[in-house]
Amino acid sequence: MTGTPGTALPMTVPASGLPARVRIHEVGARDGLQNESTVVPTEVKAQFIRRLAEAGLGTIEATSFVHPKWVPQLADAERLFPLLGDIADIGDVELPVLVPNERGLDRALALGVRRIAVFGSATETFAARNLNRTVDESLAMFEPVVARARADGVAVRGYLSMCFGDPWEGAVPLGQVVRVAKALMDLGCDELSLGDTIGVATPGQVAALLAALAEAGVPTAAVGVHFHDTYGQALSNTLAALQQGVTTVDASAGGLGGCPYARSATGNLATEDLVWMLDGLGIETGVDLGALTATSVWMAEQLGRPSPSRTVRALSHKE
Amino acid sequence: MTGTPGTALPMTVPASGLPARVRIHEVGARDGLQNESTVVPTEVKAQFIRRLAEAGLGTIEATSFVHPKWVPQLADAERLFPLLGDIADIGDVELPVLVPNERGLDRALALGVRRIAVFGSATETFAARNLNRTVDESLAMFEPVVARARADGVAVRGYLSMCFGDPWEGAVPLGQVVRVAKALMDLGCDELSLGDTIGVATPGQVAALLAALAEAGVPTAAVGVHFHDTYGQALSNTLAALQQGVTTVDASAGGLGGCPYARSATGNLATEDLVWMLDGLGIETGVDLGALTATSVWMAEQLGRPSPSRTVRALSHKE
Repeated sequence: MTGTPGTALPMTVPASGLPARVRIHEVGARDGLQNESTVVPTEVKAQFIRRLAEAGLGTIEATSFVHPKWVPQLADAERLFPLLGDIADIGDVELPVLVPNERGLDRALALGVRRIAVFGSATETFAARNLNRTVDESLAMFEPVVARARADGVAVRGYLSMCFGDPWEGAVPLGQVVRVAKALMDLGCDELSLGDTIGVATPGQVAALLAALAEAGVPTAAVGVHFHDTYGQALSNTLAALQQGVTTVDASAGGLGGCPYARSATGNLATEDLVWMLDGLGIETGVDLGALTATSVWMAEQLGRPSPSRTVRALSHKE
Repeated sequence: MTGTPGTALPMTVPASGLPARVRIHEVGARDGLQNESTVVPTEVKAQFIRRLAEAGLGTIEATSFVHPKWVPQLADAERLFPLLGDIADIGDVELPVLVPNERGLDRALALGVRRIAVFGSATETFAARNLNRTVDESLAMFEPVVARARADGVAVRGYLSMCFGDPWEGAVPLGQVVRVAKALMDLGCDELSLGDTIGVATPGQVAALLAALAEAGVPTAAVGVHFHDTYGQALSNTLAALQQGVTTVDASAGGLGGCPYARSATGNLATEDLVWMLDGLGIETGVDLGALTATSVWMAEQLGRPSPSRTVRALSHKE
């Protein structure tokens, strides 16, 4: 069966119990490009971010101020950020950046960054491997970062990785995730992003963690979800999160960050696949799916490989 | 971020309002292979179906008795079916076959088939293109097929294509789908399979159609869902269907039937991606995910290309 859908967009049929609007936190330029083997030229990144803003994305994580040695793909943060100065003119666009420590914060603040993110772990093994610290040591490292950012009026997002499973530890106890999540909020984070870094979560797990966080006093309005599509579960987990009242969803334009045929295919949820569902549900995002898809097709050409997003592939195919 | 999950299976956390057990109607050997460009040898098909049964699938659509001219991939139905005689010994395994008309029914009955399916359309354009008939003419064609099958004690499934969108007509009115669905049930079908043939549906649409069918007197217990993953929506639509009480889900081992990079990538929901979610939700299927994945890896080798199932790719990757 082949053929082009008569309408490019899905039919809109709302479902009960879902939010009217979702804020998409676009991570393609940071989490996506950081995990691509190709190092993208700075000017291409700037154009990518500009096109994402023009497609209607209001929160675009732009880059990371981690040490260039660790993430060579994003080693150009100092050159990139100044190229983005006019993007705020496109609309009400926020350009958060990842900041690992105080040194990264200094670099970001010097460039006028107004929104940062810190990157924590729910598990000891990932904290040790990724941050070279225990979970509590990493929280101690974040403390002055968050305090100084807040003192400057800079908003802080707290990423929490491995919330639903860990490649070395297996299942992650709910109480452990809640403890670290609360600690990040207590440090002064404005919002959390619950990461399924290896893509193993299923909808009951998502609902249980969100319920446990709400019970522990973390407002659902301050919680975003960050799913990877390693096992094809990202969008159904997103639906489960929306049903729990979540209104912030992380996604990566074109599914950047996951090569379709590599084991490290722990790609993010593709923004286009997410927008297709949200458009169909009549949930407002402000995103123009056609413009976004065109951007991802263009970016895939820069990377020299097709997008792993099914929606991008379906919409961009020429008969 | 790479690494092998410590546990191969997802953590089990049930969600409220979902069925305790789901029957997977495995369509890889029919709907899958019918849409692959490679023609698979009959003995390989028989081995494929045997391995699916050994992996715990209880309903495996085996082949189609459509005219060989139209579907050369399944032209060997007469040779294949007798090779499956011992599969029922594996367990309580059903082997339905697709039957387009009375001539197909004669061929199937002569081989001892005990379960058939007819293939209808919710839209006039697809009926004209696929069946060379109007919708009502196709129902008239099915009438003696269903009546004769039922008189022989043969169970009948009614496929209904294009329930959520049509490539030529665009949006498909709900009332039109309900009318044809009811007509198939009135002919004597035991169950329906609601097909999103082009993969455009979203969860609100799924819930709305299931509610409309229930209101029109079609019991939800007799309704299965058949999603294609063209836009990455198949699993979230499945979750929405389960939340409406659906307990029969069609899926294709390894996502057979969709080439990852072709426009006709209207692949079926991959059985592995479905089982991952159902295992995580604690919903019983009887399927051994490891054995199923091994089967799909083997089948992908026969077809000479990787499986489009994300779960198969993630579980089968060797570091």
